[in-house]
Amino acid sequence: MLGQASAITADSGIEYRLCAIEDIDFLAGEFEVVTSSLAFHYVERFDLVCQRVHRCLVASGAFVFSVEHPMFTALATQEWCYGSKGERLHWPVDNYLQEGPRQTQWLADHVVKYHRTVATYVNTLIDSGFRIAKLLEPEPPPEMQNEPDGQDDRRRPTFLLIAAVKTPTP
Amino acid sequence: MLGQASAITADSGIEYRLCAIEDIDFLAGEFEVVTSSLAFHYVERFDLVCQRVHRCLVASGAFVFSVEHPMFTALATQEWCYGSKGERLHWPVDNYLQEGPRQTQWLADHVVKYHRTVATYVNTLIDSGFRIAKLLEPEPPPEMQNEPDGQDDRRRPTFLLIAAVKTPTP
Repeated sequence: MLGQASAITADSGIEYRLCAIEDIDFLAGEFEVVTSSLAFHYVERFDLVCQRVHRCLVASGAFVFSVEHPMFTALATQEWCYGSKGERLHWPVDNYLQEGPRQTQWLADHVVKYHRTVATYVNTLIDSGFRIAKLLEPEPPPEMQNEPDGQDDRRRPTFLLIAAVKTPTP
Repeated sequence: MLGQASAITADSGIEYRLCAIEDIDFLAGEFEVVTSSLAFHYVERFDLVCQRVHRCLVASGAFVFSVEHPMFTALATQEWCYGSKGERLHWPVDNYLQEGPRQTQWLADHVVKYHRTVATYVNTLIDSGFRIAKLLEPEPPPEMQNEPDGQDDRRRPTFLLIAAVKTPTP
């Protein structure tokens, strides 16, 4: 909870607001595109996000976002399973169908992420009046696949990207 | 390859055909619903399946199917990771973004399954002219959750179910 939103308007005319995602309150049909990068897995109520985004989009407006992949958020440890020589054996998945908060360590201690299944992301969008246009579980681009984690990032999906389009209110 | 299709018409009037899924060849708009249970992960070309199903469906016809979940088909072993006392530690995932054949043991030796990502299932449907109506990664019903594997089947998704609706040809 960040309390009341604070807003800054830059010279570019872009207005920056500091507030919780669940608290956005724009005019109906105010935007043609809403986008978010790696943020919704910190939000408890994805259904509320979808409803608010749907409202502030024009008809056929686009909602495009990325989240940490549910295969990545299922276990709070978010770490490979290692062999005795420190080699990465595989990616462990557990508690996948048990949605809810995960106490993680991510740049700081006690960071709460909310695990949701792929099905919940997709169905919540559909139930909120979106059509799924594309779903991606991207791999690193070729030029990054020789970097230390490049090959391993092909072993399990790190991110889930969804592009959805606003349909008439269901 | 099963060669030429053989057909049997039962007393019920239902005609049973024995043929490869990729070889189905029905009239355009012949069916209102096409359904498949746990079969497409044995088929190499899911795109061809989608195109043929799309053709034989009426406008707004439904295509509903289940497959083994991509988290389940990624590793050919399809087995839990066990601890020293035989306990199931977690479900291992590896090679997830590497689509293609997997030599598995399933009721018999040398059973080839084709691993595809969730994204490929979803995007192939969309690219073939379907709208995603619902996506499920179901858990066992409550009355089965006390059975030996009941709780463990909540730890990772076993099946992926998709309901799609035919839209006008893209």
